[in-house]
Amino acid sequence: MQFTINRSAFIKALNDVSRAISSRTTIPILTNIKLVLNDEELVLTGSNADISIETTIPQSDTSTQLVITTPGGITLPATFFINIVKRLPNDSMTLTVEGLRATITSGASSFTINGQDVQNYPQLPEMDDVQSLSVSAAQLVDIISQTKISASTQESRPILTGIHLELTGNSVKAVTTDSHRLSQRIVHLTGTDADVDANVIIPAKSFNELQALLEGQDRVEIKFSTNQAVFDLGHTTFYSRLLEGNYPETDRLIPTESTTQITIEASSLLGAIDRASLLSHESRNNVVQLSLTSGNAVLTGTSQEVGQVTEELNATSVEGDDLEISFNPDYVRDALRVFNGKKVAIKFTSNLRPFTLTPEGETDNKQLQLITPVRTF
Amino acid sequence: MQFTINRSAFIKALNDVSRAISSRTTIPILTNIKLVLNDEELVLTGSNADISIETTIPQSDTSTQLVITTPGGITLPATFFINIVKRLPNDSMTLTVEGLRATITSGASSFTINGQDVQNYPQLPEMDDVQSLSVSAAQLVDIISQTKISASTQESRPILTGIHLELTGNSVKAVTTDSHRLSQRIVHLTGTDADVDANVIIPAKSFNELQALLEGQDRVEIKFSTNQAVFDLGHTTFYSRLLEGNYPETDRLIPTESTTQITIEASSLLGAIDRASLLSHESRNNVVQLSLTSGNAVLTGTSQEVGQVTEELNATSVEGDDLEISFNPDYVRDALRVFNGKKVAIKFTSNLRPFTLTPEGETDNKQLQLITPVRTF
Repeated sequence: MQFTINRSAFIKALNDVSRAISSRTTIPILTNIKLVLNDEELVLTGSNADISIETTIPQSDTSTQLVITTPGGITLPATFFINIVKRLPNDSMTLTVEGLRATITSGASSFTINGQDVQNYPQLPEMDDVQSLSVSAAQLVDIISQTKISASTQESRPILTGIHLELTGNSVKAVTTDSHRLSQRIVHLTGTDADVDANVIIPAKSFNELQALLEGQDRVEIKFSTNQAVFDLGHTTFYSRLLEGNYPETDRLIPTESTTQITIEASSLLGAIDRASLLSHESRNNVVQLSLTSGNAVLTGTSQEVGQVTEELNATSVEGDDLEISFNPDYVRDALRVFNGKKVAIKFTSNLRPFTLTPEGETDNKQLQLITPVRTF
Repeated sequence: MQFTINRSAFIKALNDVSRAISSRTTIPILTNIKLVLNDEELVLTGSNADISIETTIPQSDTSTQLVITTPGGITLPATFFINIVKRLPNDSMTLTVEGLRATITSGASSFTINGQDVQNYPQLPEMDDVQSLSVSAAQLVDIISQTKISASTQESRPILTGIHLELTGNSVKAVTTDSHRLSQRIVHLTGTDADVDANVIIPAKSFNELQALLEGQDRVEIKFSTNQAVFDLGHTTFYSRLLEGNYPETDRLIPTESTTQITIEASSLLGAIDRASLLSHESRNNVVQLSLTSGNAVLTGTSQEVGQVTEELNATSVEGDDLEISFNPDYVRDALRVFNGKKVAIKFTSNLRPFTLTPEGETDNKQLQLITPVRTF
């Protein structure tokens, strides 16, 4: 195996693939990056068993300056190999593999490092029974960023670590909940005549890496099989396993009426919450109180040890019954960041029942954050 | 105690003082910041027992918008207080102290936090038997940055964690050594008619914080007493304790002749060392070899487990006897960074004796880095 390549183009591809590679893996060969060279292209693969990323550098793309001398394959220790490639002195580099030894040369610099047989690297999953649809990358990012905040990070109920996607016709409903809060986003997909019918749960942390790859992309082809979701971004393909099981029914958790409502600029409330949480984070229990009385809204935090904070909120309107309610300010902060730049309507039923945040004027729950209050008496 | 102040000016002063404050201290009140207000100025103090920083905000400086209502003093939890000040909503803020409770107000935001009595805060050291001199900030930074790399970070021989300064007339000689390497910098102070005679050892880590304060400064007044060095930067004063004991004699460690010499661009050698150390860092012993043979210079690293690296160096000249020598690449890297942008002369006597790095053409050891090789046979 031997090829010469433009180092910048190679580094870009290595960075993309390395997003899937973790140094903490129970399968040692997955700390390696797989390189396979055929007569036309170089294919790089990285994986952590949950997600896999494969990217192709075609010889036909002249900007890569890829010159293929001898096809072949090898796997190399990812972090070490990428650090070497990044620090080489010249614009171009040559990789030569003999047996399981790879020699990397660039200018007056030469490295020889030990690799492992490409045959020992796990195969990427086969796709069976496939449904596919084309989605705008911007819409996909919108769905992910509005829901991933409420996915659980605890493995005690693995199903809750996922984003639940229900696809019907060209509509997508995405829901997450960690049982303290819930996020819901419903969109009609644009620029597609997709007509799929799928119900899948994708690990929310898979999307952290996908989001980075989506930057600068226009559209994405998504395919679902029994246990995999595949996102095709042209030269790069992203694989995520699916979570198995039934996602809990969430519609019944969303209140259908309210008795108190406040409307306020998300950024203004975010500032007050950020300050109040400085105090609550120093306390044993991370809780703040919101008091809605005859048109006034006041946020307070009190801790015997640390002190107290009072924030008079600059609300557009405070309507309905008087209410005192306590909640975790971090949940409200995460929810408000999703709405940044907009006015939000926050609707309450009682200080024991979940409250909801939606964009002002929207009533169809297409963009909804729900938070369970904290009992403080 | 009560005052109103421009928040940006206050944050700048808080940031300066907080450089001395550590959350890991055996004296709990030192996690606090001390505020003392008299009729004319607000004085802030932070300390970690090794270093102390005091900064004064005078009412006469109108940019601070300091309005003094009632003089007084308090100490407040530093990190918590500074985070609050940074996130307040308005350009100005008011601090009111009643007993040991401080109320911070800005716009519709109000915090009340618990402080401690200013009487319980340690006094800054009294200066006795003082010698003083004025130094250009740029020269002081030059002395520090060229020597601190070789100060020890091990507490087994505390004296070696310091920078040894010998001042005679208007000349300063600074030396550090961790017993594996040595840095020396000798300068004639400019713009001063100082005539001091002092021999002090200042903890090298004190200078990490001082360097940040020196940015944008023109000159610094330095005072030495029996156990303190004080750096007067106008509105801010920096105190460091001195290390007690006799610094080892170092002149005899510096070779007076050489048998092999290489001259090379510091940046070019730095690139090769950086790459070679990628491999040595993956090996059990962090060592690379330099081979100087009939005008050629080659850097190599070999590790059974990891692989090998060869770097042909682009030296300006290689003169004298052939030589093979092994060393810790991190030491050479640190030394080369000091010389960046210059050509360095590296002089060797044998593969068992220390070698030196100096700027090309300089023979007076005013700017010298010395490194002990590693025996590999």
